[in-house]
Amino acid sequence: MAAVRRLVIDVLKPHDPPLLTFTDQLAEIASVDGATASLIELDQEVQNVKLTFEGDDLDFEAIDETIENLGGSVHSVDQVACGDAVVTDRRTLQDG
Amino acid sequence: MAAVRRLVIDVLKPHDPPLLTFTDQLAEIASVDGATASLIELDQEVQNVKLTFEGDDLDFEAIDETIENLGGSVHSVDQVACGDAVVTDRRTLQDG
Amino acid sequence: MAAVRRLVIDVLKPHDPPLLTFTDQLAEIASVDGATASLIELDQEVQNVKLTFEGDDLDFEAIDETIENLGGSVHSVDQVACGDAVVTDRRTLQDG
Amino acid sequence: MAAVRRLVIDVLKPHDPPLLTFTDQLAEIASVDGATASLIELDQEVQNVKLTFEGDDLDFEAIDETIENLGGSVHSVDQVACGDAVVTDRRTLQDG
Amino acid sequence: MAAVRRLVIDVLKPHDPPLLTFTDQLAEIASVDGATASLIELDQEVQNVKLTFEGDDLDFEAIDETIENLGGSVHSVDQVACGDAVVTDRRTLQDG
Amino acid sequence: MAAVRRLVIDVLKPHDPPLLTFTDQLAEIASVDGATASLIELDQEVQNVKLTFEGDDLDFEAIDETIENLGGSVHSVDQVACGDAVVTDRRTLQDG
Amino acid sequence: MAAVRRLVIDVLKPHDPPLLTFTDQLAEIASVDGATASLIELDQEVQNVKLTFEGDDLDFEAIDETIENLGGSVHSVDQVACGDAVVTDRRTLQDG
Repeated sequence: MAAVRRLVIDVLKPHDPPLLTFTDQLAEIASVDGATASLIELDQEVQNVKLTFEGDDLDFEAIDETIENLGGSVHSVDQVACGDAVVTDRRTLQDG
Repeated sequence: MAAVRRLVIDVLKPHDPPLLTFTDQLAEIASVDGATASLIELDQEVQNVKLTFEGDDLDFEAIDETIENLGGSVHSVDQVACGDAVVTDRRTLQDG
Repeated sequence: MAAVRRLVIDVLKPHDPPLLTFTDQLAEIASVDGATASLIELDQEVQNVKLTFEGDDLDFEAIDETIENLGGSVHSVDQVACGDAVVTDRRTLQDG
Repeated sequence: MAAVRRLVIDVLKPHDPPLLTFTDQLAEIASVDGATASLIELDQEVQNVKLTFEGDDLDFEAIDETIENLGGSVHSVDQVACGDAVVTDRRTLQDG
Repeated sequence: MAAVRRLVIDVLKPHDPPLLTFTDQLAEIASVDGATASLIELDQEVQNVKLTFEGDDLDFEAIDETIENLGGSVHSVDQVACGDAVVTDRRTLQDG
Repeated sequence: MAAVRRLVIDVLKPHDPPLLTFTDQLAEIASVDGATASLIELDQEVQNVKLTFEGDDLDFEAIDETIENLGGSVHSVDQVACGDAVVTDRRTLQDG
Repeated sequence: MAAVRRLVIDVLKPHDPPLLTFTDQLAEIASVDGATASLIELDQEVQNVKLTFEGDDLDFEAIDETIENLGGSVHSVDQVACGDAVVTDRRTLQDG
């Protein structure tokens, strides 16, 4: 399998654990070099969060499992970069 | 033939295999140095995805075949860069 | 625990102490290398401020406690970057 | 004559040969270091494509001839950079 | 106290002294390495100006006093960067 | 006289000579290091073009004369940079 | 006095002398390293121009006098940067 280098996912999580603890636990996964969480929106019960991971070969199963253990769920996988080179998605004339 | 260095395609795929596995398999093709998939939109049955590939000489037939083997189809080829130099498409006054 | 490297929070604070003193006290926390406060809006009683912190391992409890001691409160945690690498949140096709 | 260093043209082409083959053949022209094609729009019969070429001294006649041999036609020349230095067109207050 | 490294303030000033003299006097303050004034708007009696200061440890009291001596007043403090590192405020998904 | 280093002009030209030949002839002027032409719009009789020139000391009379010899005319001078340093026009709060 | 390092002014000028000669004469002032003029708008009698100057210590009186000798007038001073460091005005959340 080719290495997964960068991953952006859209996650729903409860307010507890708070975003900082949540992100911190995800960054502790062995294959994760760094994780950044950005709040998209929140209501009284859930937070909708965009999570970006970078690593030499990200282990998505471990990420997904950790999110579920923390009470969250992956709503969608929004971007995946795989391979020896990390390819940047640049805007084309077809992007709306 | 001149070398194909960068390729952006618009692809329709079923939900299974998931985007990560799908992209990973494409990044394993010998001529592909890296592949990045970005979700454009999804409905109950399909995902519409923008795929960007980089390599020294991308083999489109192998890419197309792998996509079909994974149950997907190329909807359109949105950008192609060929040659010794990778030319960046910059915005001109004629771009809407 | 993985290191917290960058933190963006949305804070409500009274007019006194003024923003400069407020930010300065937060930048004095041992784990904080630098803090930047940007005014979002103000009315007669409170200021709504975006605070960005960077450090090798930010101590959120100390930050939260200092904000409360200064009469303010954390309204939301808007972004958290954890791990050995500081991952930049880049815009994807899913960002509105 | 001064050297033509960069050229952007708007081209109409039939669906066959496909964009990748089309661009590849243009990148094979001796004076072309690299060629990038971006899809503007397509209907059932034609593709409207933006083509950007770079080289030390681009031979437009050869480019035009190759496009015609491939069944396409140059709709307009949108940008030309000539001379020892490649001058970048930057936005001014007069650009709409 | 942590060092104040960058400061952005919104100032109202009379037309006299003119903006150049006004800014020049502020840049002469010992703790100020550089000051940039940008006109926001003007009416017949006042100018509304955005002032940005940089220095190793800006002395806000001296800045405020000089502005008052020149007939102006600080309308709001819009941004403050404190600490050993100058942290850049980057746009997040929560910025309107 | 100070040196003219960069010049942006708005030009009307007939369709013949075509834009590539037109730009190429302008780039051949001794004082011109590089010239870039960008199509603004065209109708059946004329092309409206934005021309950007760079050089150590651009000779505007020679540029203007060459444009007239090629059947075109300078509609407006949109930007001029003169002096030892090429100063970049950056956006201010007063730009609409 | 602190040094004036960068200056942006809004100027009204007659059509004669033309913008190139006008800018060139301003760039010849001893304290000016470079001057860039950008056309904002023009009507039958006047041109409205944005002028940006850079130098080690710009002499505004000489600039103002030269503009008047050329039949123009300074409509407003839009940006001034003074001091040892040239501070860049960056966008904050308070900029409209």
